[in-house]
Amino acid sequence: MLTYSFENIDTESMYEHLYRCIKQDILQKKLRAGEKLPSKRSFAKNLGVSTITVESAYAQLVAEGFLYTLPKRGYYVCDLEQETPAPPPRPQPPKSQGAAPERRVYWGDFVGSSVARDMFPFSVWVKLLRDVTASEDEATLLTDTSAGGIRQLRQAIADHLYQFRGMSIAPEQIVVGAGTEYLYGVLIQLLGRRRGYAVEDPGYQRLSKIYEKNDVTTFHIPMDQGGVIPDKLEESGAEILHITPSHHFPTGIVMPVSRRYELLSWASKGENRYIIEDDYDCEFRLAGRPIPTLQSIDVMEKVIYINTFSKSLAPAFRISYLVLPRHLVTRFYETLGFYSGTVSCLEQMTLARFLAQGYFEKHINRMRNHYRALRDRLLAALRQSPLAGKVKITGEQAGLHFLMALDTPRSDQEILQAAEGLDLRVSFVSQYYYDEARRQPHVLVMNYSGLEAGKVEQAVDRLCRAVLGPAPEGEATKATGGDAS
Amino acid sequence: MLTYSFENIDTESMYEHLYRCIKQDILQKKLRAGEKLPSKRSFAKNLGVSTITVESAYAQLVAEGFLYTLPKRGYYVCDLEQETPAPPPRPQPPKSQGAAPERRVYWGDFVGSSVARDMFPFSVWVKLLRDVTASEDEATLLTDTSAGGIRQLRQAIADHLYQFRGMSIAPEQIVVGAGTEYLYGVLIQLLGRRRGYAVEDPGYQRLSKIYEKNDVTTFHIPMDQGGVIPDKLEESGAEILHITPSHHFPTGIVMPVSRRYELLSWASKGENRYIIEDDYDCEFRLAGRPIPTLQSIDVMEKVIYINTFSKSLAPAFRISYLVLPRHLVTRFYETLGFYSGTVSCLEQMTLARFLAQGYFEKHINRMRNHYRALRDRLLAALRQSPLAGKVKITGEQAGLHFLMALDTPRSDQEILQAAEGLDLRVSFVSQYYYDEARRQPHVLVMNYSGLEAGKVEQAVDRLCRAVLGPAPEGEATKATGGDAS
Repeated sequence: MLTYSFENIDTESMYEHLYRCIKQDILQKKLRAGEKLPSKRSFAKNLGVSTITVESAYAQLVAEGFLYTLPKRGYYVCDLEQETPAPPPRPQPPKSQGAAPERRVYWGDFVGSSVARDMFPFSVWVKLLRDVTASEDEATLLTDTSAGGIRQLRQAIADHLYQFRGMSIAPEQIVVGAGTEYLYGVLIQLLGRRRGYAVEDPGYQRLSKIYEKNDVTTFHIPMDQGGVIPDKLEESGAEILHITPSHHFPTGIVMPVSRRYELLSWASKGENRYIIEDDYDCEFRLAGRPIPTLQSIDVMEKVIYINTFSKSLAPAFRISYLVLPRHLVTRFYETLGFYSGTVSCLEQMTLARFLAQGYFEKHINRMRNHYRALRDRLLAALRQSPLAGKVKITGEQAGLHFLMALDTPRSDQEILQAAEGLDLRVSFVSQYYYDEARRQPHVLVMNYSGLEAGKVEQAVDRLCRAVLGPAPEGEATKATGGDAS
Repeated sequence: MLTYSFENIDTESMYEHLYRCIKQDILQKKLRAGEKLPSKRSFAKNLGVSTITVESAYAQLVAEGFLYTLPKRGYYVCDLEQETPAPPPRPQPPKSQGAAPERRVYWGDFVGSSVARDMFPFSVWVKLLRDVTASEDEATLLTDTSAGGIRQLRQAIADHLYQFRGMSIAPEQIVVGAGTEYLYGVLIQLLGRRRGYAVEDPGYQRLSKIYEKNDVTTFHIPMDQGGVIPDKLEESGAEILHITPSHHFPTGIVMPVSRRYELLSWASKGENRYIIEDDYDCEFRLAGRPIPTLQSIDVMEKVIYINTFSKSLAPAFRISYLVLPRHLVTRFYETLGFYSGTVSCLEQMTLARFLAQGYFEKHINRMRNHYRALRDRLLAALRQSPLAGKVKITGEQAGLHFLMALDTPRSDQEILQAAEGLDLRVSFVSQYYYDEARRQPHVLVMNYSGLEAGKVEQAVDRLCRAVLGPAPEGEATKATGGDAS
């Protein structure tokens, strides 16, 4: 009879050991297809273990398909090779494959966003989370996965939009999701993948990429000083228009009211036409009142508003939301209401309290002051630099970047390369154009949100060197306070 | 000259008030297109306010497109009606539209999942979150949005899979996302929307729905006792196969090894063929060892493993993950690496510690004991009920549901209606078939994870009434301990 040793089996249980031994013998063909195994009782006696041990091992092997059982007759070895050749040994994957690429970290970064240390009130957040777990119904906290988001958060967002953006909407119109990129995908499922989607040219590159990855036909509509050009939009045949009217990226254009009405009029001319209003950084208008939203002047229910807390809280928070016109709310719940929400209920509850108890407003004010100081320091450094007479700055009042037109014979490519060599990340407006023929050269997009305050002067110094070429010995250095590196 | 009153302006600032007055006059055509506004200085003097106030109001109106400015000449009213008719008044949306539908809450639920109160260690979670904010680099906490998820969590998941599932994988192979439904969408973008996707019939209905909403061609492959039938799969022409080999929903089938090898062999025959192994409830095998994964016997890099913490922590946590073969890791970062992650960094860090410090294992053990007790209580109640001799129960060893075949002349539809009338939610295996001709009647899917322990006997009593029809006065009630309602 079949026999196995039970010595030195370490941490395994008896039955696990027996299971492994038999499985190995089947895989190595020491036990052949169709072979009958000993009865549980006699096998147990022979091995000096309990019947339960053998029974458990057999049951596991049956569950995994190594054994089969015939009623009242016993256990038999399965034929593992029905039509199936034994698989070849696992190939060693090439070493270069499959590693997540490291993102390069620059000494100074005028492109990416980051948030300064100490800018987020972690202790408040932890306190609110503890409050939530102490006072909310725990069953709700554990099981609420509504497609649109939890009630408390949607109410808090609606109140916030009313106070902060003058928008009068019902909480039911809000759909909460794990980031705007996720919500773009939801909108494609809601509005239809086969419709044409129009985006701004120049514009936010990730947006076109996301539409492309979702297999959506995308049209790049050229812009003039007021935003996308309505005639070009009409010509394109697109049905969905995705725009950033409050603060266009990268040009900083605020869409004038007349253009807004023109685009609303365009939308009203087709049943399936909609405008997606991307209000990504409205919280960071650094002077004057916030620009009213397109949504708030839309009387035809054609505007879908989208905004995110990733920009206003911190990038690592993945909470964004849509405001849908009412008829699309109905369609959303009919066609996509079966989806589970994508943001943890705990985090939604915590954010709801963060908003309702005034912490969000405080946080935004603090961030706005921080960014304003950062911008002013950067502008001051630029004024005192050798670039002073050679640049024209625009769009410095709104949100986290401005444009700087350079009076230089050097090409954008040359400057990019020089900056790269100085470990400085910069970008030009020209890089955001889809239509190469329309690219405007020599305009830097100065995104300062990722810049450390203490590095501003040194960063300007490096920028001067990248734009103007290497300074005569010691000169640029003197002018801007020096660069230790 | 234009004049406005500054009395009773309440909480508005002076400039906001002036801005609103001028805007209103433009909208009401009291100020006409092309009309010149007073110079800042004279207007300020006339109104008795500072020049700054007028300047700020003008600047805001320019930003919003109500005024334009000509250098050295002054401010003029924009033409708001270029080609654009004034929009009609906002229509009152019909009252029935646009409300998020309330999900019906049943007295007893054998379909949905929920988690009992007190089952989740909130205090541990809050403590770990506080630890995270106190000890991690705050800048990382605020800004890490890597597409694949944060390093610490991926490491903790890889360790967990090694210990718990015997899977030997590198953390780089893991992609973290906000729920499996989101990750299905990622896989479609990674593998291609134009390929055919095969799912199990019967199977998890939401899955087909998700593929449908993503405009993917889906094939429903019939199953035999071992899982999807390879010949039918081959005939379908599908390239991607999505299965639940460890515990099929709803039949509970554990796929035998021979079928596993057959399907791996199928996958190896086409460059673009892949198997998605959905291991949705592997943590809740209530007897015996966990079933080894398909991923762990895949030597051709054809298996994509997917699992979720929504089932094992609690539904309201939206954290799931993929394990990609290495060549797909490379493709993921090349084509989709630009995406931001979808799970908040704070929550990822907290979960990483929850896993690494052994709390997850404790939690799972606790849940498993809870579910085992619930199942035993339910089985005991069924044995003592009038249904005792009329049902055959199968699949009660694995995860959170079992099947109960009924010996009854009543149709599934009749029983469903009767249960509905008793405020009891039940489902039949027949409801999970795509191919109507193959539907097996009279088999209830008994998902007990959403059942309150204290209601088990009463729920069985109601179930008896739904299956057998109303009991003779008082009889069924006596047998199972009574139902107060």
